[in-house]
Amino acid sequence: MNRKIVLPDSEIPTSWYNIIPDLKNPPAPYYNPQTMKIIGPEDLAPLFPMELIKQEVSAEREIPIPEEVLAIYRLWRPTPLIRALNLEQKLGLKSKIYYKYEGASPAGSHKLNTAIAQAYYNKKEGIARIATETGAGQWGSAMSIACNYFGLKCTVYMVRVSYEQKPYRKHLMHVFNAEVFPSPTNRTNSGRSILKDNPNSPGSLGIAISEAVEDAATHADTHYSLGSVLNHVCMHQTVIGLEAKKQFAQTGDYPDVIVGCVGGGSNFAGITFPFIKEKMDGKKIRFVAVEPAACPTLTKGIYDFDYGDTAKMAPIALMYTLGHTFMPDGIHAGGLRYHGASALVSQLVKEGLVEAVALKQLETFQAAITFAQTEGIVPAPESAHAIAQAINEAKKADADGKPATVLFNLSGHGNFDMASYEMYFEGKLKDIELPQKDIDAAMKDRPHIK
Amino acid sequence: MNRKIVLPDSEIPTSWYNIIPDLKNPPAPYYNPQTMKIIGPEDLAPLFPMELIKQEVSAEREIPIPEEVLAIYRLWRPTPLIRALNLEQKLGLKSKIYYKYEGASPAGSHKLNTAIAQAYYNKKEGIARIATETGAGQWGSAMSIACNYFGLKCTVYMVRVSYEQKPYRKHLMHVFNAEVFPSPTNRTNSGRSILKDNPNSPGSLGIAISEAVEDAATHADTHYSLGSVLNHVCMHQTVIGLEAKKQFAQTGDYPDVIVGCVGGGSNFAGITFPFIKEKMDGKKIRFVAVEPAACPTLTKGIYDFDYGDTAKMAPIALMYTLGHTFMPDGIHAGGLRYHGASALVSQLVKEGLVEAVALKQLETFQAAITFAQTEGIVPAPESAHAIAQAINEAKKADADGKPATVLFNLSGHGNFDMASYEMYFEGKLKDIELPQKDIDAAMKDRPHIK
Repeated sequence: MNRKIVLPDSEIPTSWYNIIPDLKNPPAPYYNPQTMKIIGPEDLAPLFPMELIKQEVSAEREIPIPEEVLAIYRLWRPTPLIRALNLEQKLGLKSKIYYKYEGASPAGSHKLNTAIAQAYYNKKEGIARIATETGAGQWGSAMSIACNYFGLKCTVYMVRVSYEQKPYRKHLMHVFNAEVFPSPTNRTNSGRSILKDNPNSPGSLGIAISEAVEDAATHADTHYSLGSVLNHVCMHQTVIGLEAKKQFAQTGDYPDVIVGCVGGGSNFAGITFPFIKEKMDGKKIRFVAVEPAACPTLTKGIYDFDYGDTAKMAPIALMYTLGHTFMPDGIHAGGLRYHGASALVSQLVKEGLVEAVALKQLETFQAAITFAQTEGIVPAPESAHAIAQAINEAKKADADGKPATVLFNLSGHGNFDMASYEMYFEGKLKDIELPQKDIDAAMKDRPHIK
Repeated sequence: MNRKIVLPDSEIPTSWYNIIPDLKNPPAPYYNPQTMKIIGPEDLAPLFPMELIKQEVSAEREIPIPEEVLAIYRLWRPTPLIRALNLEQKLGLKSKIYYKYEGASPAGSHKLNTAIAQAYYNKKEGIARIATETGAGQWGSAMSIACNYFGLKCTVYMVRVSYEQKPYRKHLMHVFNAEVFPSPTNRTNSGRSILKDNPNSPGSLGIAISEAVEDAATHADTHYSLGSVLNHVCMHQTVIGLEAKKQFAQTGDYPDVIVGCVGGGSNFAGITFPFIKEKMDGKKIRFVAVEPAACPTLTKGIYDFDYGDTAKMAPIALMYTLGHTFMPDGIHAGGLRYHGASALVSQLVKEGLVEAVALKQLETFQAAITFAQTEGIVPAPESAHAIAQAINEAKKADADGKPATVLFNLSGHGNFDMASYEMYFEGKLKDIELPQKDIDAAMKDRPHIK
């Protein structure tokens, strides 16, 4: 039996799957944070190329992937679907566990799927530079690589706590000619305003987004690029699930449950959306979004309109949120430290199509080490959340006497996160759960749309 | 056209290729460093399992790979053969460049091919612990992973300069339960003797080998394991070349020249030996071994008997050597800092079947960055030597008006070497060429066999 289901280059999907036309209810519009009115394309034009603005609200089920994007996808796609035989054996499972390995990309994560597309559309519309933010550095690496391929300059605002914890990510961005700054910086009004109150601010995705948006909005040759959350980003990631469907067709199995970690939601969307379509069409299948207990947006946040960033410069969206001023602890899954979540993923949770769970940090590191020791891949701490929950699902199915087929998205490798593993072994990591009062405090400044 | 030639799990070779019976001249025997007599199996038994001792001198052309080893190879093998289309385009080449990507392994390098086999045979013969050395950390990582799979303990003596430059490699070994010490240590007589003369010794592979051999020789439950140089190690690596042959058969091309970097010589042996067999059978093909100008064993060393390690505990072999007391500068291709080379590779160089060149450090980093920016893989600094020479070969063939097909072995990724890249960008790396007087000095203490 093949452990790895590998497809030839010719099997890379040629269209992305857009879930919007298949949703039970149409998504709520975005609102302009200054005017509080529904956002139109003209509001977004200073930040995004028109092609992506169209994709954001497209009613087309399939959007063709440009050949220029496919040419770069071929560097690493299709990614393998792998049966975790060694992990199953180690745990004595009757359930089967499969994983889709997105860490095979040049950036080491799924992020490059959308970065390449975004860089392409920006280049096509004559943009010279991209400003963006990054948490753990996965998105910043991906955008640096993508910009380098299309000859764009790239400026990355990297959350300070990750900038310090993960210098290798910063070095990687330098290999691809990006400039990287620890956020909050003195380069923007948003950054300066945070630093005035707290010169030692560890930063957050919300703050870094504000800085990157401001940079783009104040430079005519520069656009902004977001690595998760938005509809078009989730859509670009569907290459993951579309490939996984083809690969499952070769195994004779079909997933009973699909697990993915959620920060903004894009890797989860990428692997699940094509299968959610099949559930809508009658397949029996569950979807579980996993988030950190230290930043439990989907499980403890409220479903309401909120700002996408700390400084209220990004669009207002209807989503699960912990409040845009929420400042998560410096946990090691830096990519999961976002106060909000994708509007689409939020809606699917709200409508009951997707379940959500929150896991504590130590459980995820333990799962990561078991996985590394059996499957040979050290996962990113973010992806470790998916691993831990996949194991939980498999054990529970066994305990219920109904062994299941579990699929999870291994969104990235942890080669640049080794210092976090060393801290885990040294006993320096702690379980952090979010006190309700922090959520209550962060909720005070909501925009109150409708 | 497929960029990546990917084989199914079922195409992993089921035998290793042993080049010894196909050599024009039989290899010289090893000598015991204490008695100066030819080594027999009983001399090696305290260090190695009998199965590996037999493989070291086997006259069989094909040695079956045990199913237990194949089962773990399936975690990442077959590795892809990739056409470097983006690199070719960037350089405007008419020549074609292919690479075999061994960085896809859990250890991030080719080293795991032999580590798995060695751990397996040791486990089978009842050994409880492996002591070994590591330069850049690639071998130590591989042995840690292999030992963990077979339930063996693993003690790694890591050359101090790499231990300090590459903490992530050390962390990776910890994930797989190994204990790692910066060598020279106070744990062995060899280490203490070096530290007495030079408490700040940066270490060398020669010293670290002495420490690991001494550890194994003084503990009955412990064996030694070497990550390169020896015949059986080179043989285990031939899975690389055997797969590459199958993959080339799918391309319609055939390599005119194969390039690999050489520290001890095993990754070079792995990709070339199966093709050297074809050259002996009449194919027209060249082989180029690339080493650093700071440690130019094959190009500036002499072909003579020398000790395998600094403290004269390891066997004496007929090989190219810079002298067993040679202390290379702390260049960033730590895996290429060895005073000697594989006896088999040395013999093939001596007999004219293999060419050798030495490259300076900065040229290899420049090639590595060009490669990363086009092909999307940041290479290990060791592998960067092969990349630089592959580019040189392709350019020369173009200049000669005879575009060629170049194959090189991308022996490992550089995800754990990012600090070296950062130093390169900061202008902190220098070109180091070895003064002849250093070689002359190191040659004084040769064993003078025959």
